[in-house]
Amino acid sequence: MINTDLNIAIIGEHHSPLTQKFGIPRQSNLVELATTIEMYPPYDTPSAFLGIEEFSHLWITWCFHQNQPQANFRPQVRPPRLGGNKKLGVFATRSPYRPSNLGLSVVQLDKVEIKNNKVIVHIIGADFLDKTPIIDIKPYIAYSDSIENAKSGFADSPPTEKTVLIEANAKQLLQQQFTTKQIGKICQLIALDPRPAYRQNEINSKFFMQYANVDIAFLMTKNGELLITQVIEI
Amino acid sequence: MINTDLNIAIIGEHHSPLTQKFGIPRQSNLVELATTIEMYPPYDTPSAFLGIEEFSHLWITWCFHQNQPQANFRPQVRPPRLGGNKKLGVFATRSPYRPSNLGLSVVQLDKVEIKNNKVIVHIIGADFLDKTPIIDIKPYIAYSDSIENAKSGFADSPPTEKTVLIEANAKQLLQQQFTTKQIGKICQLIALDPRPAYRQNEINSKFFMQYANVDIAFLMTKNGELLITQVIEI
Repeated sequence: MINTDLNIAIIGEHHSPLTQKFGIPRQSNLVELATTIEMYPPYDTPSAFLGIEEFSHLWITWCFHQNQPQANFRPQVRPPRLGGNKKLGVFATRSPYRPSNLGLSVVQLDKVEIKNNKVIVHIIGADFLDKTPIIDIKPYIAYSDSIENAKSGFADSPPTEKTVLIEANAKQLLQQQFTTKQIGKICQLIALDPRPAYRQNEINSKFFMQYANVDIAFLMTKNGELLITQVIEI
Repeated sequence: MINTDLNIAIIGEHHSPLTQKFGIPRQSNLVELATTIEMYPPYDTPSAFLGIEEFSHLWITWCFHQNQPQANFRPQVRPPRLGGNKKLGVFATRSPYRPSNLGLSVVQLDKVEIKNNKVIVHIIGADFLDKTPIIDIKPYIAYSDSIENAKSGFADSPPTEKTVLIEANAKQLLQQQFTTKQIGKICQLIALDPRPAYRQNEINSKFFMQYANVDIAFLMTKNGELLITQVIEI
């Protein structure tokens, strides 16, 4: 039973090379990926952003737009951090499957670009997809938002990173498509190991992460490294 | 022009002694006021909160329910912190008058109470009103949310606190109604000086802060202290 609904406007849209859930970091700022928010009219007026460059970080409220609407409230989820086999209450997690369908991420503000008198917000560290609808942008205020010693339960430290290697052929194809900096970001995304929890022990199984216009195939070697084996144009 | 709307469910309701905007702290955690969130069905099931006590802090997404709906988008606001006479872009502030009408606050989690098999979430430090509709509850994750050195523009430090004094008669009335701890919180709320920016220099003008079932009158003395002069039952 839903008591009342709110109607909330979508104010913009995210543009990112990450177009699929597989590969999206589980929290913001794990990878310093540069992306942009294109504001929709009438929210694209430069005057609505006056003063924003005084802040280094922003809160972005956004919508998990690829989720199927839930017919009924599901009170529990299985966080990937716990191997996917332990159930927790949805309000004790940041699971995408929640009543509000809203995501919340703190990102770095790179710059506000004015293009044809419309605003494009350049951000760094987003953990949300290409085409994500944007609901709100607010400045991060350190004195109230930064709680260094907060006890953070099962998510008390960043995920560990794996070593990433690239096969010679794949490296050549990556270098044809991307800058050294972009290849670095791709490796960082894979280092976070996007494979689902229940397949973490599989050796030599191939997984595909879509990044911009390519599919990047990787597998886990018997040494536990993640090896990029193929780069396929889509 | 609004491109698309989202429908978002209200999952609960806030209960606080602060029933009016006047007196509400401008950010969360400035005053350690204890309040509760009553969950609405079906979100009031204890299973939806399993594991939440592993976290010390929560993000609450809520709705500025006392705002009049805006017919048109207003791109600029006058933050009280800047004396109310400097305009900034709405997205460079946390002004309540924003397209989403959503508020965002990090609060301390005190405890989750199960009462008749329904959930009541006890929180500390809320900066939102009694009866505020609650949209989402998420755990605070320190490694991604705590950015100690974030540059926070015009809000780079907590507001300064004024000295609060209480006249003898008023003190007696407060002591009849409230515990010493509650009186302490009332003084902390007033110490943040809820008076509007354009009246900050007025000496001896009386202001009223509603707290639970009383109106608390105070004024600024010529020494710059805030003096509680009356306590009136409503």
